[in-house]
Amino acid sequence: MVTYEDVAAAHERIKPQARRTPFMTSRQVDELTGAKVFFKCENLQRMGAFKFRGAFNALSQLSAEEKRRGVLAFSSGNHAQAIALAGNLLGITTVIVMPANAPRVKLEATRGYGGEVVLYEQSENREEVYTKLANERSLILIPPFDHPHIIAGQGTAAKELIEDAGPLDALLVPCGGAGLLSGCAIAARHLSPDCRVVGVEPAAGDDATRSFKEKKLVKIEVPDTIADGARTTSLGKITFPLVLRYVNDMLTVKDDELLRAMFWLWERMKLVVEPTGALAACAVLERRIDVKGLKVGVNLSGGNVDLRWAASQIGKRER
Amino acid sequence: MVTYEDVAAAHERIKPQARRTPFMTSRQVDELTGAKVFFKCENLQRMGAFKFRGAFNALSQLSAEEKRRGVLAFSSGNHAQAIALAGNLLGITTVIVMPANAPRVKLEATRGYGGEVVLYEQSENREEVYTKLANERSLILIPPFDHPHIIAGQGTAAKELIEDAGPLDALLVPCGGAGLLSGCAIAARHLSPDCRVVGVEPAAGDDATRSFKEKKLVKIEVPDTIADGARTTSLGKITFPLVLRYVNDMLTVKDDELLRAMFWLWERMKLVVEPTGALAACAVLERRIDVKGLKVGVNLSGGNVDLRWAASQIGKRER
Repeated sequence: MVTYEDVAAAHERIKPQARRTPFMTSRQVDELTGAKVFFKCENLQRMGAFKFRGAFNALSQLSAEEKRRGVLAFSSGNHAQAIALAGNLLGITTVIVMPANAPRVKLEATRGYGGEVVLYEQSENREEVYTKLANERSLILIPPFDHPHIIAGQGTAAKELIEDAGPLDALLVPCGGAGLLSGCAIAARHLSPDCRVVGVEPAAGDDATRSFKEKKLVKIEVPDTIADGARTTSLGKITFPLVLRYVNDMLTVKDDELLRAMFWLWERMKLVVEPTGALAACAVLERRIDVKGLKVGVNLSGGNVDLRWAASQIGKRER
Repeated sequence: MVTYEDVAAAHERIKPQARRTPFMTSRQVDELTGAKVFFKCENLQRMGAFKFRGAFNALSQLSAEEKRRGVLAFSSGNHAQAIALAGNLLGITTVIVMPANAPRVKLEATRGYGGEVVLYEQSENREEVYTKLANERSLILIPPFDHPHIIAGQGTAAKELIEDAGPLDALLVPCGGAGLLSGCAIAARHLSPDCRVVGVEPAAGDDATRSFKEKKLVKIEVPDTIADGARTTSLGKITFPLVLRYVNDMLTVKDDELLRAMFWLWERMKLVVEPTGALAACAVLERRIDVKGLKVGVNLSGGNVDLRWAASQIGKRER
């Protein structure tokens, strides 16, 4: 399992490199909800998402021999960039396996941070590709969420928010594989014991909500949602029991609600947030949870969004 | 004239209501420029722009009798919303004269902040409309920039930045009518005497640059630029001598450069900034000024941009 002590130790490890992101408040949101809402701006984290916290924590704890061997990750999203940047800062070779049809901007960003990108075709089996690579080159595989050092690193986002904003009545966190959610829940339980921690995932990919409610691990097909960071098919072996133990509730939001919330954050709070990063804010803005009179933390988990894609969606946000 | 003492007094007046906006830094910008750049995020100010500072400072200083009479402003932009919000907070009636063809979103925002909007048709003379209104209803006219209380209020943005980030070698500020520029220059001269203050305006509306270089007030036609906050035709009677006295240099940037800089701020810094708000950042990002080895302040003056318009421009930003 992962404990609060792991989160605290992760925080010391990542402090020299991770940004202590600010929280922001909005009178408009507070008037709308009757709550006092604190947005934790992980879209302003290095490489544009919370993922840097876990990646840097995990890579920092490799042995000298493992560091020499190098690291392997598979991701077309923020985990790729996080591993590449963390490896760069720590002098560790990183190899990122990405689909050949991944957006050019993501390939370039990953290479820009110093990662070696290995592409695979749709006809190939991703697992075979990276297993072969890991074996041939003796690389250490760092999974995107189901790893205790990743989870502990992500929990530092909640630790900072509670330290900076004070104890909370509720904390809402986007949920994909629940690395961020479970880490934040562990931190919140320790630092703000009465805080209700709520995970928010896209309705099209409600595996975590179902797993939480049915108390057994539900697996689904890759969900069709604009929240690309939450296109996970199930919680992990490590994150699932942590979610059951530390998370108080799970909610889902639909893609059209999510789009509206995302552009609301752009327009009113002047913050560029990606669809996955707007999940928790969406639950509050769409009043999917009653937070009246409460002090509420909302994690804006990332801001890496293709502006051309966003431009193509702007007409769809109206009610 | 306006002095640093006026800026300091304005700061005390606006502190309870204005946001002390954060500054942000970017490793990417620092690597690109060789400088240490501090972005003052006035896009995160109340109503989305620095204008709230001057408006609240000016309205606070009206006499009890003037407050009873109410305030008149003409603006289709941020000044309108700033006056409406400041009036609302201070219990002062505000009447905003706006063109009938102003964007619906701006009319609604101004009304939303509590302003009474009076529309005029293109066939009418704006000056006649507001002069008649001011006389009939005994309203106090608050101009958008050429007013000592407005200038002193805007200067608080530079005061905060230098207090928070320390003395600067250079400070770049967007320039329309130079209310922000002259106020910031007064503050910088006092708090960071060696700081070079540079105004940045759109090339299509280079009246301030020409006025500065020719040392006489140049008037131009309403400029055709995407920087709608800098579509001024000349500096003011008060701001022009302040610019001559306190500003060290003026620069211009072209609209295509400005668009690129604006989206760069969205994409890389995750900050929604409007075209006018990106003027100073543009000068740095496009290397129009050599800041190598310097500690540089950059004012991101506002973030009120129509997302549909921005979406329509996204294809134009490529080199």
